[in-house]
Amino acid sequence: MSAAGRRAGIDVGGTKVLGVVVDPDGSVVHQVRRATPRDPGPRGGDAVLDAIVEVARAIGPYDRLGVGVPGLVTFDGVLRAAPNLVGSDQLDVARLLAERLGHAVEVESDNTCATLAEWRLGAGRGVDDLVFVGLGTGIGGGLVLGGRLQRGRNGFTGEYGHMVVDPAGPRCPCGQRGCWERYASGAGLARLAREAAEGRRAQRVVVLAGGDPEAVRGEHVDRAAREGDEDALAVIDEFARWVAIGLVNLTNALDPARIVVGGGLSHAADLHLGPVRRWFEQLLYASASRPLPEIVVAETGELAGALGAALLADERGRATPSA
Amino acid sequence: MSAAGRRAGIDVGGTKVLGVVVDPDGSVVHQVRRATPRDPGPRGGDAVLDAIVEVARAIGPYDRLGVGVPGLVTFDGVLRAAPNLVGSDQLDVARLLAERLGHAVEVESDNTCATLAEWRLGAGRGVDDLVFVGLGTGIGGGLVLGGRLQRGRNGFTGEYGHMVVDPAGPRCPCGQRGCWERYASGAGLARLAREAAEGRRAQRVVVLAGGDPEAVRGEHVDRAAREGDEDALAVIDEFARWVAIGLVNLTNALDPARIVVGGGLSHAADLHLGPVRRWFEQLLYASASRPLPEIVVAETGELAGALGAALLADERGRATPSA
Repeated sequence: MSAAGRRAGIDVGGTKVLGVVVDPDGSVVHQVRRATPRDPGPRGGDAVLDAIVEVARAIGPYDRLGVGVPGLVTFDGVLRAAPNLVGSDQLDVARLLAERLGHAVEVESDNTCATLAEWRLGAGRGVDDLVFVGLGTGIGGGLVLGGRLQRGRNGFTGEYGHMVVDPAGPRCPCGQRGCWERYASGAGLARLAREAAEGRRAQRVVVLAGGDPEAVRGEHVDRAAREGDEDALAVIDEFARWVAIGLVNLTNALDPARIVVGGGLSHAADLHLGPVRRWFEQLLYASASRPLPEIVVAETGELAGALGAALLADERGRATPSA
Repeated sequence: MSAAGRRAGIDVGGTKVLGVVVDPDGSVVHQVRRATPRDPGPRGGDAVLDAIVEVARAIGPYDRLGVGVPGLVTFDGVLRAAPNLVGSDQLDVARLLAERLGHAVEVESDNTCATLAEWRLGAGRGVDDLVFVGLGTGIGGGLVLGGRLQRGRNGFTGEYGHMVVDPAGPRCPCGQRGCWERYASGAGLARLAREAAEGRRAQRVVVLAGGDPEAVRGEHVDRAAREGDEDALAVIDEFARWVAIGLVNLTNALDPARIVVGGGLSHAADLHLGPVRRWFEQLLYASASRPLPEIVVAETGELAGALGAALLADERGRATPSA
């Protein structure tokens, strides 16, 4: 099988390393996945690199390879802050992978990759000003302005999760208080539900969580809401308001044509998106005097990061050697 | 005198309409100012247009004219939301000025103009990723990413003042609660000082305001701080924290190389900038793992809007007919 025009992308997530090979038209030819090394100790970076190399060898052949990793990633492909990859902080991913694989590799943050995938192949197609927000365990994203993917001065755009939306709010592992991802992530939804449970305002949700308020997760809220439970719908409305606050802040600053929401929310979009849009219109500055950006759900799903990584080499406009 | 290569810019502010003519090298040849019409009633838009036309005729000759106005401004030069210009909402500024002056006019928001001035002629020179924030009565700004002034989908980027930083905070005239400009503007500094005065933590500030806590303004805080008053310095520290929260949010999202701060803060930069930088470093996500953007004071002062308006035609890459 020829590698002509085939690009490979690998996405390193918290639980799995996912590789894809795509044809020049963007269609996925092949997928491979391996578990992300768990608790690998101080030499965790090596274990992560081993897993990437294993996936790269399993998905070939390809012409070019891009890799998405979670954290701040410099233009040279060095991981600067990687709270979810033990032992990988300051890891020179691009250089070390190139040594092991024998060819150049493009490395970017997973969220920048996902933004690129949604812009080129997903729900962000056709617009020049796009905000992508991934609402997962935390929140990350990226942006396209003026028809170009924007990486900022260091490659660190899109750290939306650590926008402070309540300086007196709950402590974030990053050290601050009231970061947006304390409210608008999967973890945020679960926290809002637990708070409701403590106030005995989410009894059905607690039942679905096996009777233990501490075991409540977002999926229990969503399930109760689908049953029509009023308490669960109230929790979702509160959650939607927090989601909207962040999207409003980004829209006031960036005036996008479209906002693409991926991650956890996209799995329950039928429940969440209506309330988010309603709060968004209510909270946006001068919303009656302006066109509102579309708020839509991501289309590339769990492949977003890997697909975007496969597109990186083209986006950067420079070739990498053949594999 | 020939108009060859001379560009004119007019900035419509809350108190004055300021016009400049600049040479091709950017140096100011001529300045004219008129009072902004006050309380002009329902036909306020006409009075504002009259003032602009009067300034335009007084500053000539010029080749091209740009005008900056406060509010949301569409790409066609229509004012969509103009809380500070009575009777001017929905005013088609570009068309009406062209009719009166007999030549095309570029129209933009005053904050976008100021951003352009600082990027091309001021403290933002030489960087490709820039955030400009004007801290005045309210807060407005603009952004340059990837070496281009970014206007977003509708021309409405940079409405930073209405980012929500505390959903339970004080009511904003825009209808929301806890907008950044309730805290980090000149009005915000005065409010923090009045709150301190009510708690008897700003006695020297109140004395400087003539003994009336309700009369406290930012300048009284700054004056007391210059005398070394500890209470006033504490108010400034609290103010600086709120300024930093907004700058941190913008940096997490946009990763600028430099942040240029204009408006009120720039007049007391010696007092405010140190605390702002300290809070910024403390609050920014992963600040120990990344280069920090420079935070600097604007250089073009009260001419920012008019200078930027004069640069508009070049920036948009299309010519306007000769005056």
